[in-house]
Amino acid sequence: MKITVLGAGNVGGTLGQAWAKRGHEVFFGVRDPGSDNVRALLAGEGALQAGSLADALAFADVIVIAVPWRVALGQLERTAGLEGKVLVDATNAITWDGGPVAALQESVSELIARAAPGSHVVKAFNSIGAEHMAGPKIAGISPDMFFCGDDEKAKAIVARLASDLGFEPVDVGPLRNARHLESLALLWIHLATARGYGRNIAFKLLRE
Amino acid sequence: MKITVLGAGNVGGTLGQAWAKRGHEVFFGVRDPGSDNVRALLAGEGALQAGSLADALAFADVIVIAVPWRVALGQLERTAGLEGKVLVDATNAITWDGGPVAALQESVSELIARAAPGSHVVKAFNSIGAEHMAGPKIAGISPDMFFCGDDEKAKAIVARLASDLGFEPVDVGPLRNARHLESLALLWIHLATARGYGRNIAFKLLRE
Repeated sequence: MKITVLGAGNVGGTLGQAWAKRGHEVFFGVRDPGSDNVRALLAGEGALQAGSLADALAFADVIVIAVPWRVALGQLERTAGLEGKVLVDATNAITWDGGPVAALQESVSELIARAAPGSHVVKAFNSIGAEHMAGPKIAGISPDMFFCGDDEKAKAIVARLASDLGFEPVDVGPLRNARHLESLALLWIHLATARGYGRNIAFKLLRE
Repeated sequence: MKITVLGAGNVGGTLGQAWAKRGHEVFFGVRDPGSDNVRALLAGEGALQAGSLADALAFADVIVIAVPWRVALGQLERTAGLEGKVLVDATNAITWDGGPVAALQESVSELIARAAPGSHVVKAFNSIGAEHMAGPKIAGISPDMFFCGDDEKAKAIVARLASDLGFEPVDVGPLRNARHLESLALLWIHLATARGYGRNIAFKLLRE
């Protein structure tokens, strides 16, 4: 699959490299494609490319958003031709006030859907730490990747991308549930930082 | 410990009976203490009593709220002498619109804290099904009981009550995080109903 990853930070870099290793063709959209960080990310992996955010948005029909949410909204509002594309929102709108606090009453995902009319937004890859994006187990158990969206075909693509990384995908319903996945991220961040659990944690849905 | 449980429905009834079996003295606050349902609940268990909501609120310093959230708010607003009491909020403010939807922008717990000034509110026992309130394992793993609040002594009491039922208690921080635990409940309900997972599910925090 051809995949665009907007952002080449901890989350975007880890996801893009992991998908390239599993046979996908990945294009990172970044502000400075010639930076040392980006060069290091691409080194030795032929399935990885990098370019501007605009070039990245044109490259693939599956676009994973791993830049800060305000940057993503600004770029999407300036971009035409996103109709029919799958936008995978891995962001969280969080501010800090003695601990992580939601910056919005609604979800980023719903703002993204309005900024890119005709696209298919799926919330995913937002409720686990970057270190675990490439799918390692915790205490011998595979974490779940929770996702939601309104388009079934788009969700099937995201479920496959999550499975490729070793996650068990768990569909939590329509895009309006994205705010609850952002809540899950806030709980994760609070536990990892203020509560001292560290980043080696993840939520799992127990079922029989 | 002396425990008041407001409500004797699926959640309140299961919690109260389980705590009575583990040596606590439980008083159910209900609208009709003489009803068949309440009589059946008390049968054969000397550590269980039932009375009016007002009598129940006076009985113990630890009060678990398992009546609908609007009923709880109304009763607490009419009740004096709640200063210093631990109010354990097991409710969720949910409406239905093709699926479960939050009825509030903030959490019920914060409304309860305002309705009972001087009390210590802890959100807990809201993000798992009633059948699993008494602590059975799922797929051989103990579910976690997520809770939050602003008073450390009150949270220690709730952690002990959760441990007594077989849960691993997980403190997710201050009371303002209660909205995220209500999000967890919304995800649980959506998965159990619309997504077809059924009620035999629970969230777990994987850690090493």
